[in-house]
Amino acid sequence: MVKLIDFIRNVPDWPVDGVQFKDITTLCVNSIPFKESIDKIVEHYKDKGIDKVAAIEARGYVFGGAIAYLLDAGFILIRKEGKLPWKCYQEEYELEYGTDIIEMHQDAINKGEKVLLFDDLLATGGTAKAAIRLVEKAGGIVEGFAFVIELTGSLHGRDKLEGYDILALVQIPVEE
Amino acid sequence: MVKLIDFIRNVPDWPVDGVQFKDITTLCVNSIPFKESIDKIVEHYKDKGIDKVAAIEARGYVFGGAIAYLLDAGFILIRKEGKLPWKCYQEEYELEYGTDIIEMHQDAINKGEKVLLFDDLLATGGTAKAAIRLVEKAGGIVEGFAFVIELTGSLHGRDKLEGYDILALVQIPVEE
Repeated sequence: MVKLIDFIRNVPDWPVDGVQFKDITTLCVNSIPFKESIDKIVEHYKDKGIDKVAAIEARGYVFGGAIAYLLDAGFILIRKEGKLPWKCYQEEYELEYGTDIIEMHQDAINKGEKVLLFDDLLATGGTAKAAIRLVEKAGGIVEGFAFVIELTGSLHGRDKLEGYDILALVQIPVEE
Repeated sequence: MVKLIDFIRNVPDWPVDGVQFKDITTLCVNSIPFKESIDKIVEHYKDKGIDKVAAIEARGYVFGGAIAYLLDAGFILIRKEGKLPWKCYQEEYELEYGTDIIEMHQDAINKGEKVLLFDDLLATGGTAKAAIRLVEKAGGIVEGFAFVIELTGSLHGRDKLEGYDILALVQIPVEE
């Protein structure tokens, strides 16, 4: 067992001044923490009868595909607006300034299927909540939402996901 | 064993008129062809001593992360310009009109490491060749390039990758 947080690089002032970006490429590039992250998520959900793993582009796919493989589940791509070629469900979520839209194919989920959601990072929870609404709109049952990193402190992302099983491998406090 | 091509959806006129888009989300969403695709690639490269798997965003990550996990390799994210937070190598490649740039972190590869590249689709080979140049610029040894789909016929993508081990699971002919 390694300490996952030791493999996450802090990049100051990226993508904009004042943000301390948490870079997980340094975790992915090392097979030991990469594998351990995936194994921990699979271990937590392996007896839940997960039918599909849905992940949010692009970093979400890096772990999400492996998790789906190991859970014998199908994999669903949630993407930004306009990138999926078929009929989609859409959900809007708020950014600091303005809004953004994520989409999922309407035929990705059969009614009643159990879905595990994955993203690399839980911050304000806006994208995550929109992803939950997408899955539920398609008739799926959200069995949980897994993240590698949860930013804790002033962001309160977890509060937005109340009532769902949340697994975050690493907690990093963020100051206001 | 399933016929992988049966799970690839043809979307006419997407993203632009005249293009027959090959949609692999219908393959990913079904655990049987999804798993089989990954297993075939892992089987082909499992004795090659792969240190790192590098994939091109975003669909490349869906399979690439799982392949890295199963090969006990680290995973490298190759992204479009401006999306990676650290010091990058860049390579430019030609589009039908204009050029585009892909990037990889400079610390992603140690000199002499064996790298397997992955992308979902081989078309003209422009992006693939740029990805090979990125890996080699960083001192990596390209052990092969795996794709789910290879468009054959008038595009000649494979010719651009001469001298490298190419594995494509499904060949689809494209008419001029």
